[in-house]
Amino acid sequence: MVQYVGVENLVRLVRAVGLETFLTELAGYVEEDFRRWPEFDKTPRVASHSSNGVIELMPTADDVLYSFKYVNGHPCNTREGLQTVTAFGVLADVKSGYPLMLSEMTLLTALRTAATSAVAARYLARRDSRVLAIIGLGAQSEFQATAFGALLGITRVQVYDVDPVATEKFCENMRGRGLEIAVARSSQDAVTGADIITTITADKLKAMILSDNMIGAGVHINAVGGDCPGKTELQATILNRGRVFVEYPEQTRIEGEIQQMPDDFPVTELWQVIAGEAQGRRSEVEITIFDSVGFATEDFSALRYLRDRVHGTAFYTDIDLVAEPEDPRNLFGLLNQN
Amino acid sequence: MVQYVGVENLVRLVRAVGLETFLTELAGYVEEDFRRWPEFDKTPRVASHSSNGVIELMPTADDVLYSFKYVNGHPCNTREGLQTVTAFGVLADVKSGYPLMLSEMTLLTALRTAATSAVAARYLARRDSRVLAIIGLGAQSEFQATAFGALLGITRVQVYDVDPVATEKFCENMRGRGLEIAVARSSQDAVTGADIITTITADKLKAMILSDNMIGAGVHINAVGGDCPGKTELQATILNRGRVFVEYPEQTRIEGEIQQMPDDFPVTELWQVIAGEAQGRRSEVEITIFDSVGFATEDFSALRYLRDRVHGTAFYTDIDLVAEPEDPRNLFGLLNQN
Repeated sequence: MVQYVGVENLVRLVRAVGLETFLTELAGYVEEDFRRWPEFDKTPRVASHSSNGVIELMPTADDVLYSFKYVNGHPCNTREGLQTVTAFGVLADVKSGYPLMLSEMTLLTALRTAATSAVAARYLARRDSRVLAIIGLGAQSEFQATAFGALLGITRVQVYDVDPVATEKFCENMRGRGLEIAVARSSQDAVTGADIITTITADKLKAMILSDNMIGAGVHINAVGGDCPGKTELQATILNRGRVFVEYPEQTRIEGEIQQMPDDFPVTELWQVIAGEAQGRRSEVEITIFDSVGFATEDFSALRYLRDRVHGTAFYTDIDLVAEPEDPRNLFGLLNQN
Repeated sequence: MVQYVGVENLVRLVRAVGLETFLTELAGYVEEDFRRWPEFDKTPRVASHSSNGVIELMPTADDVLYSFKYVNGHPCNTREGLQTVTAFGVLADVKSGYPLMLSEMTLLTALRTAATSAVAARYLARRDSRVLAIIGLGAQSEFQATAFGALLGITRVQVYDVDPVATEKFCENMRGRGLEIAVARSSQDAVTGADIITTITADKLKAMILSDNMIGAGVHINAVGGDCPGKTELQATILNRGRVFVEYPEQTRIEGEIQQMPDDFPVTELWQVIAGEAQGRRSEVEITIFDSVGFATEDFSALRYLRDRVHGTAFYTDIDLVAEPEDPRNLFGLLNQN
C-alpha cells in the first residue's frame, strides 16, 4: 500500500505538530539535503506549456529515495476562484521502484519554500536581524513571516501590498502568532529599517518591486516572487551591488532575477555555503541576495520529512495505488479472483 | 476533489464492464487518439536510472487534457516477490492545470498495451487471421490473448514459455474464456501455422526469441517484449524481410527492436496508417512487424477512457489531493480554521 497524505491530514498534522515546529523540523531536512547536494540526480523540470499556463514535473533522487512533484502555474486561475499554483508529489523507493507516499503539495510547497528561505537567511542574513519586510501579501506571505519568526528570531514584520484586501487577510492570519506586524504605506516605507527583505509578489511581467535606492548596506534580500521567464522583482543594479546566491544555476539563469544579467554573471550556489565550501555573508555591510526559484531537492526534503513525521501517526491513509498480486507474474489473476 | 481509481475499483470496473468489452472500448480510444496524433504535445520520457532499474515519467497533452504516467522497471524485483513494473497515472485539465483523476496503472498499462497491439494488428495483420502465437507467458500474456480474441477474431492461441509454471498460470487464467489454447513444446512449434505472433518475453539481454527461419510469408509480428536499450527479441534479418511499424520513431530507435538497425532504417509510423496517410499491409504475403515499446499517448487514451467510463459509477472515490481554500490567496487560512 502507498501512504496518502491529503490536504485534510496535512492540515491536521501541521496543527498537531505546531506550525513553527513543523517549519523548524522541515528546515532541518532542507538544510541536510542541501549539504549533500552532489549526491542528488538533478534534471531540469519537464514543462508542458499551454496558452493559459504550464504544467511541470520536477523529479530528483538520491541513492535511496526518488521524488517528483507535479505543479501547475496558471496566472489567470484566480479570476475563477482557483489557485494559480497547485501541486502534489510522490516519494518512491529507488531500490524497487515502488511508490511509497503520495502527498498534496500545494500547502507543503508553501511550507518548504518558507523553510528554504529561512535556511538561506540563516547563512546569509546578519546574525542580529530582527526586522523583516515582506512585499507582496499573497498565498505564501504568512508562511514566510512565520518561518522567519521561528528560525531567524525575527520579531517585527513590516508589510506592503497594493491590495488592501490581501493586507487585511495577512494581518488577520498573523494575529496572535507572536510577531509585531506593521502595515506600511509603500514598499519604500516597508523596507525602511528592515534587516531582511522578502519580495513575493505575483506580477507576471518584469516588475521593479525593489529599486536600487531602497536598499541599504547589510541587508539580506530574499527574492522569491521572480520565478519564471519574464517575471522579476528587483532592479538589475541591485544584483550588481550585492552577492547573489542561487539553488541551481542552470535553472535560476532562466527563471530567477539573474535572467536580467549576462550568462556569466557570478553567482554562488547555496549548497556550497551550507556545505562550507563557499563563503556566505562576508561582512556586516555586504548586501546578500537569495535569488530563489524553488528546486526539486526542496520538494524531496519536504516529502522525506513528511514521511518520517507521519510515521506512527493517524495523519495518513493507505491507498491501493499499486497492484499487489500474490504472484507478481499473475497480474491477470486479479481480474479472475473473487 | 480529484477522482481516485485504485486497484480494487479498477478490478471491479473491468469485471462489471466485462474484460472483452473493456478492451474493445479502450481500443476505440487508443485508435481515436492515434488518428489525431499531430495534436499531441510529445516529449521523450524522463528517466531516473539506478543500479537496480529505472523510474520514468511519461507526460503528454492535447489542448484539453494533460496526462503523465509514473512507471518503474526493476528486472530483479521478482526475486523478492515484487512486480518488475508498476505504474500509476494522472489526468489533468490543461485550462486550469488542476489534476482531475489519479489512477493505478499497473493493470491499466497491461490493458492499454494489449488494446494497442490489437489496434495495430487490425491495420497490419491479414484479415483472415485466426491463429495467434504468444511467446512469453508473463504478466501481460493473458491480456494480449484476450484482446486479440475480442478485437481480431482470433480463435486459437498457441503458446510457449521456457517456464512450465508460467505456462500453467496462463492456461489456468484463460480457461473458460472462449479461446482454444494449445501449449507448444518450443517457440518454433508455437509459431507454426500462426497468423500473428506476439513476442512478450522478459529477457533483459538481447535475445533471439524469433529467428528468421521461423517466419513465414504473410505473418504479422507483434513485438512487445523488446522495449528498452539492450533488450530485443527478433533476429535482425527479420526486420529486413518485413515492414516495420512504430509508435514514435525517436523513442523506438533507442528502445525497440530497431535499435539493432542503422539510424536511417525505414519505418512507418502507426498513426499514419490509422489516419490513412500511409499504407498498412500491402499484400497477403507481406511480413508486417509492429515494433511496440509503449508511448505516453496510449496512457493518455487509457486515462481518458477510464475517466469517461467511471463517470456516474461507484468505481472511484474522491480524494483531497488539491487544497481548495475559499479565497485562493488565503492558503494559510486552511491552517487557522477549525
